Amino acid sequence: MDFAALHRPGHPLLLPNVWEFGLAAHLVARGLPALGTTSLGVSAAAGHPDGAPETRRHTVALAASLCTLGAFVSVDIADGFSEDPAEVAALAEELSALGVVGVNLEDGRPDGSLTDLEHQSAKIRAVTTRVPTLFVNARTDTHWLTDNPPPVDAALTRARAYVEAGASGIFIPGLKAPSDIETASTALDVPLNVLFQPGRTLSDLASLGVGRVSLGSLPYRVALATAADSVLAVAEGRDQSVVPPSYSQVVALLSS
Amino acid sequence: MDFAALHRPGHPLLLPNVWEFGLAAHLVARGLPALGTTSLGVSAAAGHPDGAPETRRHTVALAASLCTLGAFVSVDIADGFSEDPAEVAALAEELSALGVVGVNLEDGRPDGSLTDLEHQSAKIRAVTTRVPTLFVNARTDTHWLTDNPPPVDAALTRARAYVEAGASGIFIPGLKAPSDIETASTALDVPLNVLFQPGRTLSDLASLGVGRVSLGSLPYRVALATAADSVLAVAEGRDQSVVPPSYSQVVALLSS
Repeated sequence: MDFAALHRPGHPLLLPNVWEFGLAAHLVARGLPALGTTSLGVSAAAGHPDGAPETRRHTVALAASLCTLGAFVSVDIADGFSEDPAEVAALAEELSALGVVGVNLEDGRPDGSLTDLEHQSAKIRAVTTRVPTLFVNARTDTHWLTDNPPPVDAALTRARAYVEAGASGIFIPGLKAPSDIETASTALDVPLNVLFQPGRTLSDLASLGVGRVSLGSLPYRVALATAADSVLAVAEGRDQSVVPPSYSQVVALLSS
Repeated sequence: MDFAALHRPGHPLLLPNVWEFGLAAHLVARGLPALGTTSLGVSAAAGHPDGAPETRRHTVALAASLCTLGAFVSVDIADGFSEDPAEVAALAEELSALGVVGVNLEDGRPDGSLTDLEHQSAKIRAVTTRVPTLFVNARTDTHWLTDNPPPVDAALTRARAYVEAGASGIFIPGLKAPSDIETASTALDVPLNVLFQPGRTLSDLASLGVGRVSLGSLPYRVALATAADSVLAVAEGRDQSVVPPSYSQVVALLSS
């Protein structure tokens, strides 16, 4: 089975987003067939703003380590770390050579605006032309980090242009209303990817026709919160709330 | 106050061991005055065995990012990533130039044996001679990862040689029996560092005369377990067991 075939509308691929090797090794050992990455996690771990150009090399290094695990690897490359379509395509080619099977490429910009539709389409086309085998999951941020989401058509206009440019899938983080999710999955000829929302189940999203569910930065944020609590619990004389794997169990993940 | 002065026998420094920037930024924002690193976490995150030579550069890169946070930073350099005392001293000098105030240097080897006492002392002396301002926490692994710990004197023989070579503190991971901890803290002229043990409190260790308590790989192992569970909970239709910080809260950590 190839990576694209794991995207079955109504029976979506759950793609866990990782930012480091140990967690990825643990999840693959637990049987998960595919890994995504989280640009927030990669950036935060390295001490840079989310998607900052400095994180390009950390993203490539992470991809190289994940590709040793034998699972499908799809990499969040944010905006491609460049406004030059040829440079974005070069990054995609570099990742593909490592064994990466997919990338996420987003149109959101750090200031909250969206990249011009033509320009974003040119980036996508540059990638799909240079590396036709790559599953390009085109992310549109029309609904991301906004308290006033626009009609779903705003996302679909962009999505159709990105599919026209060769995208294999469409990711609309922030698309939350069940009717909007159903409208989008029905309207698109490619798998729709949405972000998991705590309080909703994978089955709920499956029934809306979604082809991929990703976790975004959730695992990183959980790790941050619980690791900090393990320290603060000691400082405050509280019991540990989690019984973690032993040192030897983690060591075993690194030698398998 | 300098870093050494935070080591008060009976009122120990709690040193949280981190492997990435985001957690460190969060802990410093919560008021912790000092950070350690964990070689297991750094190695696992990069996909290498604990303390492998390939992790030297990851260790230096982490140190550079942590030193931007304004807390004291002490770095776990495992065995110094070299058997050549001059190379270990060069690493210590490189870290000191970044703003690092301390290092952990261990005598345990990957096969479970201990580095020859004279050779380990030479490594320590090379570091303390080259960078006299550095707090060298000499770790002896006489009691680490063994089901049959030797008498505490086995650790003290090594500890005394390391102090003679210029060590500012002694770390004996695996030293667990309260009477052994009390014996060691009384016998040594420098602060004794022990590993936190779940089920014991910081106050328990303080009352035994300990000068530093570190968490070793505990925070990393907690992060790994809970991040994995956040993924598996979605896969299995379970509720999330942790409410993490929001995306925006993590972003804020990276821009402060």
